[in-house]
Amino acid sequence: MNELTINLKTDSRVPLYEQIYRYIKSDIQSGKIQKGEKLPSTRALSRYLEVSRSTVELAYEQLLSEGYVEAEPYRGFFVAQIEELYHISRGNTKEPEERRQERKYQYDFTPNGVDLNSFPYHVWRKLSKEILIDDRTELFRSGDPQGEYGFRNAICSYLYQARGVHCLPGQVIIGAGSDYILMLLSMILGTDHRIALEDPSYKQAYRVLAGLSYETIPVGLDKNGMRVSDLKESGADIAYVTPSHQYPTGIVMPMKRRMELLKWAQEDEGRYIIEDDYDSEFRYKGKPIPALKGYDKNERVIYLGTFSKSIAPAIRLSYMVLPGTLLEQYRKNSSFIQSTVSKVDQLIVQRFIEEGYYERHLNKTRAMYKSRHDVLIEELRPLMKICAISGEHAGVHLLLTFKNGLTEEELVKSAEKNGIRVYGMSAYRIKEKKEEAATVLLGYANLSETQIREAVKILTRCWG
Amino acid sequence: MNELTINLKTDSRVPLYEQIYRYIKSDIQSGKIQKGEKLPSTRALSRYLEVSRSTVELAYEQLLSEGYVEAEPYRGFFVAQIEELYHISRGNTKEPEERRQERKYQYDFTPNGVDLNSFPYHVWRKLSKEILIDDRTELFRSGDPQGEYGFRNAICSYLYQARGVHCLPGQVIIGAGSDYILMLLSMILGTDHRIALEDPSYKQAYRVLAGLSYETIPVGLDKNGMRVSDLKESGADIAYVTPSHQYPTGIVMPMKRRMELLKWAQEDEGRYIIEDDYDSEFRYKGKPIPALKGYDKNERVIYLGTFSKSIAPAIRLSYMVLPGTLLEQYRKNSSFIQSTVSKVDQLIVQRFIEEGYYERHLNKTRAMYKSRHDVLIEELRPLMKICAISGEHAGVHLLLTFKNGLTEEELVKSAEKNGIRVYGMSAYRIKEKKEEAATVLLGYANLSETQIREAVKILTRCWG
Repeated sequence: MNELTINLKTDSRVPLYEQIYRYIKSDIQSGKIQKGEKLPSTRALSRYLEVSRSTVELAYEQLLSEGYVEAEPYRGFFVAQIEELYHISRGNTKEPEERRQERKYQYDFTPNGVDLNSFPYHVWRKLSKEILIDDRTELFRSGDPQGEYGFRNAICSYLYQARGVHCLPGQVIIGAGSDYILMLLSMILGTDHRIALEDPSYKQAYRVLAGLSYETIPVGLDKNGMRVSDLKESGADIAYVTPSHQYPTGIVMPMKRRMELLKWAQEDEGRYIIEDDYDSEFRYKGKPIPALKGYDKNERVIYLGTFSKSIAPAIRLSYMVLPGTLLEQYRKNSSFIQSTVSKVDQLIVQRFIEEGYYERHLNKTRAMYKSRHDVLIEELRPLMKICAISGEHAGVHLLLTFKNGLTEEELVKSAEKNGIRVYGMSAYRIKEKKEEAATVLLGYANLSETQIREAVKILTRCWG
Repeated sequence: MNELTINLKTDSRVPLYEQIYRYIKSDIQSGKIQKGEKLPSTRALSRYLEVSRSTVELAYEQLLSEGYVEAEPYRGFFVAQIEELYHISRGNTKEPEERRQERKYQYDFTPNGVDLNSFPYHVWRKLSKEILIDDRTELFRSGDPQGEYGFRNAICSYLYQARGVHCLPGQVIIGAGSDYILMLLSMILGTDHRIALEDPSYKQAYRVLAGLSYETIPVGLDKNGMRVSDLKESGADIAYVTPSHQYPTGIVMPMKRRMELLKWAQEDEGRYIIEDDYDSEFRYKGKPIPALKGYDKNERVIYLGTFSKSIAPAIRLSYMVLPGTLLEQYRKNSSFIQSTVSKVDQLIVQRFIEEGYYERHLNKTRAMYKSRHDVLIEELRPLMKICAISGEHAGVHLLLTFKNGLTEEELVKSAEKNGIRVYGMSAYRIKEKKEEAATVLLGYANLSETQIREAVKILTRCWG
């Protein structure tokens, strides 16, 4: 190997040792230097290149550690057999991305919005950095299948303080998102059940449960939530409900109905209530009602919570609290399923809660959503001759029900023509119901107060 | 509110505005300052505390943004109704952790080890920091259910270069770990299938598939892997195999058997092969054989890969490549399931691959495992009179089969008495098989060369 041509750039941002390493590696990969050839001694090469010997040693060590060369005691460095090494080329085989071409709206009243401008980036970066700061091998070992103990404990404290739920970390299972939690729950329960769902409802849960091959039965609502008489008739043994803020109607289930539901669950062995407390954090009027799970003396309620809604959708972190009666089934059927959330993410959110950031974030977001909520209701006033507001006491959307004869389709289309997206209630129904009054949903989490003002002015014009 | 007692500490690490904020917040929470009370003006308080007015303003803004106070134009700041705010207490309701009391071993030859000392912490921190550096709201929005496009594209490039697999990003689905990938696959395929598994096998896959209520059939191995004649007889329509390194026997399936398997899959409509390529990265002898998926002309192979084994177990990142024939079923049955991996993690690993770190890491780890492998085989030489080595050409473990009459239990127990954990083959069998020769597994990924030398010396003494 006499014709090593290495052009070192002393003004480069790439360290000298790395430049040397790259030259030699590339010569080995291209076959210019062949298997078994001896590299120049570190002393010779350092003289030749006019760099320190330790620089060359560093380069050789890198080549050695990656298997490009082998060291022979007292003899020096020799090029290794490299056919077995990996050469991963960067970027190729691009296919044209099949992007869904979605219509662009100037204002989108999505009911599933989360304001990401209030996301605490600074804190997130800080916690993330602090957690990764030491070379903690522990952090990268397999974690507890249920989720890290400390994190589950922090969730229990939160649930106790904020939702009136008493539970122990042993009942909590962490998972990467609510869809996954339902998939795991189906392994615990088995799929031989009939599940009653609120109609209209959160369609994603319906899709997932149906995809898991559950028999699903839509059960209608009255002004207090799921009709318990219809639930009884349905023959279902599991009821999936959203008591703190029914999606999409916004009904906050009153205490009496909650008690009736709990009573239904106790009436027969093996009945369960799945309480999806997806956005209990946002409430604008009246005293908070503790979660249904808080009254679950007979261990019949499976509680579902998520951080995707209260922190950010891309935080894939949800959890369920199992009643004691299901713990044994979990241990038997599914406790071997490995955790779907990295320890790093769990630790970030644990510290986010424990150090008070979550509390601050919730209070801040809630105050912000409250202002938007107030502005929206204020701006909607001119429309009150032709429609009524409902579901406005919690969550991040409200409903408008029209009595001027316009159909849902006409409302949605005329808004769309003016660059505004609103959401028709019919999309949330499982069974179609044609005779009802036209209702649209307006979500406000993703719009600023100014945007809300502007958009509602346009809506008033086109609907009024 | 005249008796505001605020003791500011100018030498504290807590900024002055934060100290003021905390005092007032705590007084509001404890009820010392009540709803409707007016806070002192920023001018008055700043004079009283001898701090700048902007410091007080910052504190008030914080209180305002969290909803503790309300601002009234021209009048000042008033304490808000705070019952609705969240007060998350930090830590409480601790239950004594039910820790599995595992026996401590001095040396643990676990076959599932991953050397975490070689984990590239520095690079991980750097990438993580760079990705979080800007306040990129995009990063925290819902991601693509299949996984981010760029990351899927990087996986395709890797599979093409390293495993001879041609696929498009549209076929790749990212998921949080291999267990989850199987759960998702079961939604795509449905559970009305009979799955043949290698016996002995990777028990975790067996447990998950059985937990998903699949009918599973153990199929025996000969020296080339799963017996295709037995597979035919089993009546299975899906075969779960590990061709590049059968777990636990270490068999590398030769080309002929691979072709027989592919032929079996083509013989009947709806047959599939699940190829679990879990540790294809580590191979010590002979030319690499491309993945079975590389020869899958008839779209019958579902390919599973993971980064948990090649980077770190706590990196919850696996993926599957669906054959074209299953894409439509995926889109219909499960494409609505939201991704289980955060965008941040996906981006870190994408850049880890694209910027060449993964290649370096693999080559480095492989060289290190190879040295440990060589040391282990060298040290085992004195035992070769009483046992034979097999499965040593790939992966991070090998097998010892004994011919001196000792039973597996005796081997494991006598090692255990000397503080060494070895793994009996019987734990990997689905059907029990009593007559076979005693075999133990020795994994070397978690032990240094020195530890291997010391441990094998002890094993030689107690088994020899």
